[in-house]
Order: sequence, then structure tokens, then C-alpha cells
Amino acid sequence: MARAWSLKSRPQGMPTMDNFELVDLGRRELADGEVRIANSWLSVDPYMRGRMNDVKSYTPPFELGKPMQGGAIGRVVESRSDRYREGDMVQHFAGWRDEAVLPADQVQPLPQLDVDPQAFLGQLGMPGMTAYFGLTEVAGLKEGDTVFVSAAAGAVGSTVVQIAKAKGCHVIGSAGGADKCAWVQSLGADAVIDYKSGTPVVKALGEVARNGIDVYFDNVGGEHLDAALAHANVHARFAICGMIDVYNSAEPTSLRYLARLIGNRVRMQGFIVSDYVGKAADFYRDMGGWLGEGKLQRQETVFDGLERAPDAFLALFSGGNTGKMLVRV
Amino acid sequence: MARAWSLKSRPQGMPTMDNFELVDLGRRELADGEVRIANSWLSVDPYMRGRMNDVKSYTPPFELGKPMQGGAIGRVVESRSDRYREGDMVQHFAGWRDEAVLPADQVQPLPQLDVDPQAFLGQLGMPGMTAYFGLTEVAGLKEGDTVFVSAAAGAVGSTVVQIAKAKGCHVIGSAGGADKCAWVQSLGADAVIDYKSGTPVVKALGEVARNGIDVYFDNVGGEHLDAALAHANVHARFAICGMIDVYNSAEPTSLRYLARLIGNRVRMQGFIVSDYVGKAADFYRDMGGWLGEGKLQRQETVFDGLERAPDAFLALFSGGNTGKMLVRV
Repeated sequence: MARAWSLKSRPQGMPTMDNFELVDLGRRELADGEVRIANSWLSVDPYMRGRMNDVKSYTPPFELGKPMQGGAIGRVVESRSDRYREGDMVQHFAGWRDEAVLPADQVQPLPQLDVDPQAFLGQLGMPGMTAYFGLTEVAGLKEGDTVFVSAAAGAVGSTVVQIAKAKGCHVIGSAGGADKCAWVQSLGADAVIDYKSGTPVVKALGEVARNGIDVYFDNVGGEHLDAALAHANVHARFAICGMIDVYNSAEPTSLRYLARLIGNRVRMQGFIVSDYVGKAADFYRDMGGWLGEGKLQRQETVFDGLERAPDAFLALFSGGNTGKMLVRV
Repeated sequence: MARAWSLKSRPQGMPTMDNFELVDLGRRELADGEVRIANSWLSVDPYMRGRMNDVKSYTPPFELGKPMQGGAIGRVVESRSDRYREGDMVQHFAGWRDEAVLPADQVQPLPQLDVDPQAFLGQLGMPGMTAYFGLTEVAGLKEGDTVFVSAAAGAVGSTVVQIAKAKGCHVIGSAGGADKCAWVQSLGADAVIDYKSGTPVVKALGEVARNGIDVYFDNVGGEHLDAALAHANVHARFAICGMIDVYNSAEPTSLRYLARLIGNRVRMQGFIVSDYVGKAADFYRDMGGWLGEGKLQRQETVFDGLERAPDAFLALFSGGNTGKMLVRV
């Protein structure tokens, strides 16, 4: 019997368990061209919070009372498509469930890289592409840039640190707590700010970014974005990837240094990774190379059992993950 | 006896008359290569507020106890340069005074366009170039774009309206009060918002921008910027020119819709006009053409007498000008 998490009600502010319901999907026979996949790994990501609102956005909102979607990795257990055989490991977007029935054209084989399959939900998947294209295409990263990245111990941020180092940049990361900061440092960051230390981010950043910053990779918004504005160099480029600080908040963002945009000709560019999937070959080529050279490290925070998927999701908003947050089914 | 306004003390928040002092410059004989100019028109501009702070920026701060600078138009009354003769009308940057003594290389002849000389301090000068390059170079204006511009009755904003209309765009302006709104409408704007009407800007903009906005030209910041974010289309481009709402404020900018940057891939680009003076020939060519076709209208708000220069400057921050604010000496 397949089961899935459906959205029972739309959260106001921070979601709670009451917003989610685990439902039986029953068992459906495959139609021609379909495959049945036993999911092994499910992704939970901060952007999913936006899909829980009934607001027009780049992805449609989750429908109330319907299974939610998200990245997943699994094994084909039954196939009526000539493209997949039983036992094939695949990725797809029918997450938040233990078993998925999909037309073969909504399923992709795993890329040919020598990593654990769940890495394709993190550093070698959508979060990794977000880091890669955010730096290369959105921020126009150049060797020698000073790069500041918030949520630097997260799935995206930790990859930003490593790609920026691999490309010859000076990297400053921000993370919450001593353990995460130590990990970010171990990834090669030249300086790390602990935003939970009590020192305002704008002050902490000023102490380590003596020559200002050229690139800001924003996963957080709020105080981190304001600090980046305060220390932005002329022609700084901000890749605005996420604002986890405000996803659950009805409070507006308060920016003291916004007018610095003008004098320093700062460019702030919002982006979503799906606009760049046409260039995925560049990503796999470069990441494969860095993997081979031992330049990429990753961590995972794993919640075991489909039952715990909402817990894993909610923990994203309290800093509960180091590296990629995953659910192992 | 030449006189000039000097900065007596640095303002905290809104400047007052106490921050300014009218001082005698004495009379200095010309050195070789210098000219003496009797100023006819002085420019006061919002950006000057930034120069009154002791903060590193794209222009150095005004020095305490020294005459201030700014755009000016005048007549050469004495020349020891072979580049200018007595009677020549010129422009230069030694404003805030009735008479300027300058090396000839810090003086420019007026461009060959058939307009009143003071127009070269407004629509045919720096504010006009700001409108032109902000739209063309910064926002990448395309025919058919819906353009929203704040402070649309100001020197920059009123020119933005007219250039955008000349380039085949749908234009929405915001201005304060019925008279200014009527003028902006008369310039060709397709819709005008009165931000003093009591309706929140985000609501008023939503009512007239049914299909969203593609370009926002920001002169104001704050509530106007937030409204533009709320109604930005996918791939909207924001040219961030000024934020007069915050120049005198210690309060941070509060943005409720900032995260829309991400889903709609909005680009916010701060700019300053001096980066584009190398392309001034493009500006004069296009503006000259539109002038000849009768497509450019302008207004001026004139304060008479050098004594009133600070009053004119301060009135910029209370909406005291329609079109370019000028001081006639």
C-alpha cells in the first residue's frame, strides 16, 4: 500500500504537523509506458514552503488534499516502459511518498558520477545546480572575488563555498553555531561568521571583509542581506536565491543599507535554478572534475521513515540540518 | 564681491537653515587659463543630501566650512583662456555661488540645442541623462514594456515618462497631489497614481497595472519600491536611481514583497549617471530629435536669488517642485 503526505491545510506562518496528513494512495496497475518506483530518498527543501501558500509563483501551489511533490530517488520495481527495467535507480519529482507511479518521460536515470545516489538530491542535484548557476550565471563569478554566502552549512551554501574556492575566490560563510562554522571552515572558507554568536551580522562581516564583498549569495534575506549591502563593493553582484528568514514570517524585511545599491551600483538578481537546467551538462562536467580531484565534500542530515518527512521539513527552518536534509524511506 | 553657500554643519536627518552659511569669497584675480563666470542658474538636486554626510560614496562629501558644489549655468565675464570669450554661456560644477573662477578645462560650452540655457541643468542635462541611461542602459527598456516611475513630476521622473512614451511603452507614474498628477498625465502617462491620496501605493498600482510592470524606475524607495516588487512581472528590471524617502531618515526601509525578487527573477540595479557620460552623444542625438518633434515638455520650479538656494534645496524633500528645481541668481 503506497502512502503520501498531502497538504491538509495551508500554514499561516510557521507550518505545524496539523498542516500535513499521511494518506493511502491505494495500488494502481501500471498503464503502458509507466513505471513503479520504490522511493529510497526524499528531498525536503525550503522553497517548498512557498508552494504551501495559495499564491501564483514560479511553481504552482500544492493542492489541498493532494499528495505533495518534491525531488526523490528510487528503484524501479515494475516497468511497462522500454526505457526502464526493474532495478534501475532513477530520480523524479514525485516525492513526499514511498512509492511513485509515473510515465517514463517524467523519470530520469541517475547521472554517471561515482557518488551515493542521494547526492543527486543535494550537491549533485538541484541544490548543487543552484549553487553553481547562481555563482556562474547570476553573479558572474570572477577569480579573486570576495564571496559572502549565508546559510553556508546548508545544501546550497556549502556547495557555494566549495565552488567559489575551486574558482579561486576569497570566501566568507555565515552559519549558526560552532559545529556548523567548523564544518564550513573545513570546506575551505577563508572566514566564517557565527550568526548565533550575538554579534550583529553587519558588524561580524565588517570585521572579516576588510576589503568589502564582490558577490553575495543570499539564502537567508533579512539581516544577512542588509549586512551584505553595508559591505558591498562597487559593482557587487548579489545572487538572490532564497530568503528563509521570511518564508514563515508576516513581518516585512527591514533594510538599513538598501540605498547603498545606488552609490555602489550593486546588482541584485533573483533567480530560480530551473531556468538553467538547459546548461546541466556544464554543471556535471565541472562538478565531476572537482569530485575527481577531491575538492567536494558534503554532509547529510537524515530523518528515517516516510512518517518523519514533515519533521525533516520543519527542521529546515530551525537550522536542524548540516548539509542536505533528506528523508530515507 | 562673490558669495557662496558653505556647509556649516552636517545635518542629522532633515537639514535645516542652520546647516548652511552664506560666505564671502572675496575677489581673486584670474590666473592664466582661468575664466570668471557670473552664474545665472544653479541646480539643487536630491543627491546633494548624500554629500552632506561624512560618508565615503561615489562623490566625496562636501567639506565643512567650504563652498558646496553643484551644477550651474553662467556667462563668462572675464577670460584668461583662449577657449572662452567674454559673453560665452557655459556650464560647470561650481554651483551654490553667484560667481565662479575656474580653469577652462572645468568648464563646458552649452550643447547646440535650441532650448533655454537652464534646460541643461534639467531635462537636457544630468537629470535628463539619468532618465535616459537609467531606462536604456540600466533597465534595458524594450518597446511594449510597462514602465512604472516614482516621483514622476520631478526633473528625472517627468523625463522618464516622456522617453518611455517616445519608445513605445505603457507608462504609469506616481506623483503627489492633483496638480502634479495632471501634469504627468499631460506628458503622456497612461495612468497616474497620487501617492498622497491615502490609498496605499501597492493597492493603487495594482488597480492600474493589471498586467504587472516590466520596468520600475525608482527615485523614491520605501513604499514605492515595495509596491513595484509586489507587481513585478517575470524578468522585471528595476533601475534604482534614488531613494529620496530615506535620504533624511534614520529608519530602515521596510519591504513586504522583497522575496518576489526570487520567483519573478527580478533584477534590481543601482546606478549613477556619471558612469554613462561617455555615451552623452547618444543622449543629445535622441533628445534633440524628440525636442524637434515636440515630444519633450518640461517645467521648472524657480527660487529667485542666491540667498534662497537652501530653501530651494530643502523644498525638494517636501515635494515643493514640479519639474526641475532651480535657483535663478
